[in-house]
Amino acid sequence: MPAIKHMPITKVSGFSSLLQSDTLSIEEPLEIRIEYGRGTARMKKNISVTMRTPGNDLELAIGFLFTEGIISSYQDVQDVYHVCDGTKKMNIIQVELVEQFMPHVIPSDRNFYTSSSCGVCGKSSIQSIKTVSPFYHGVNNPLSVSTDILYHLPAKLKTAQSGFATTGGIHASGLFNIQGDLVLLREDVGRHNALDKLIGSALAKNLLPLNQHILLLSGRASFELIQKAAMAGILIVAAIGAPSSLAVELAAEFNITLLGFLKENRFNIYNSGERIVIPAVYE
Amino acid sequence: MPAIKHMPITKVSGFSSLLQSDTLSIEEPLEIRIEYGRGTARMKKNISVTMRTPGNDLELAIGFLFTEGIISSYQDVQDVYHVCDGTKKMNIIQVELVEQFMPHVIPSDRNFYTSSSCGVCGKSSIQSIKTVSPFYHGVNNPLSVSTDILYHLPAKLKTAQSGFATTGGIHASGLFNIQGDLVLLREDVGRHNALDKLIGSALAKNLLPLNQHILLLSGRASFELIQKAAMAGILIVAAIGAPSSLAVELAAEFNITLLGFLKENRFNIYNSGERIVIPAVYE
Repeated sequence: MPAIKHMPITKVSGFSSLLQSDTLSIEEPLEIRIEYGRGTARMKKNISVTMRTPGNDLELAIGFLFTEGIISSYQDVQDVYHVCDGTKKMNIIQVELVEQFMPHVIPSDRNFYTSSSCGVCGKSSIQSIKTVSPFYHGVNNPLSVSTDILYHLPAKLKTAQSGFATTGGIHASGLFNIQGDLVLLREDVGRHNALDKLIGSALAKNLLPLNQHILLLSGRASFELIQKAAMAGILIVAAIGAPSSLAVELAAEFNITLLGFLKENRFNIYNSGERIVIPAVYE
Repeated sequence: MPAIKHMPITKVSGFSSLLQSDTLSIEEPLEIRIEYGRGTARMKKNISVTMRTPGNDLELAIGFLFTEGIISSYQDVQDVYHVCDGTKKMNIIQVELVEQFMPHVIPSDRNFYTSSSCGVCGKSSIQSIKTVSPFYHGVNNPLSVSTDILYHLPAKLKTAQSGFATTGGIHASGLFNIQGDLVLLREDVGRHNALDKLIGSALAKNLLPLNQHILLLSGRASFELIQKAAMAGILIVAAIGAPSSLAVELAAEFNITLLGFLKENRFNIYNSGERIVIPAVYE
């Protein structure tokens, strides 16, 4: 499925206008369904509908189920496929879970961690993530990254982001190794979907936990994105935009290095700056 | 409640770093509950949890219920208030609906129109919005706006957006009259919340339908934002960023003028350009 669509638009500039063709990011709903349980007790459930850019739909479904804590590894999945109407793929992904695996949480809506926190405060949300996250107790590693590697990441992401250059309206999540090489890139009109696609892909490739990597977000860092990063064991998150207060608090709880406003020669450190190395300059 | 928070950060620039205090947009969950039905059959239901910037919470709750089609006017609301723990306001808004009013749809999650579309395609989502929108059949009015008024809107929004200047990480929805004067401005870490706050405020002031106005969005125009604009009867939507394909399709169905990439001297028209007047230039 293409991720962009051509549409006729009118470009207005100053006092003149011009009819021309433009490319737009495609946004379409995707429904994620799971099938679980044993033999005759096997059940189906609609888990979520999200507006997404078509493409990497299987990764998106797997990544979403993982970052929401519904599955805990790729081995929990027996099969994953588009539901078809005749030969036409529908915007529905069915994920069949292995019979032995019983998902212990079946959220009824998208922001599961948020909505499951009965006290409705950030703290209880953070607590529930700690309970479910499979990599929470593995954060003692001597990971560090140099500023000059970080300064190059935005340009690398931009170069790799073919979609952005075309439509100007799409978010990206980029995964870099600690040497600054791009390992994975996923895009979507929804920033959470771009990250779910990336994590779903990494999960299927058996790369988790991603604790030797840097995650670069093309926009702002919200609570939801840090929650997903924490679930995947990511220890360094850099955003081109600003983080929210709750994103910083969650990063602090998980000892995640959180950087914001990353540009070619500067950034802000919001948490766990001990992993950042500023090289000495000899003049 | 304050919308920003001060936090210590490290600013890294080139090869040096500096410890200083920074302001961050606050992101906290808000739960929206309704109470409805008659006498002893009165029931309570949790409708939604959204991550939002504190402030204008009552408007957000009312606006959300309206744009999701759960209430159809402000007269359906008997009372709206923060639920308190002792004297402390919690992140929970309770909306009591009048006894005579029975909400005909009780969605179970946030993206109601999306998730209620059984075929899971944009078309069925659009169909369900048409059914619920109270202003769908009132679009025959001779509204028009001149390019020079439009060119001034981004600067007016930016000037009015006190939050943005401080944190760099917050979305805004601005409502202008057709002469280009700012009527209402609401901000939030979530773009959908900023618009729900704005529409909730307009609803409480009995300003709907907003069919003599221009809605300016600080970021991209997604399907969800055009859906909310359509519910409020808005006929001209301008975005600083790009629209998605489904946003354009929805705008076309509702005869909404949709502009993207609005800058001080240019923009793109994606739909219903007949409302845009380009003044003749006499040299």
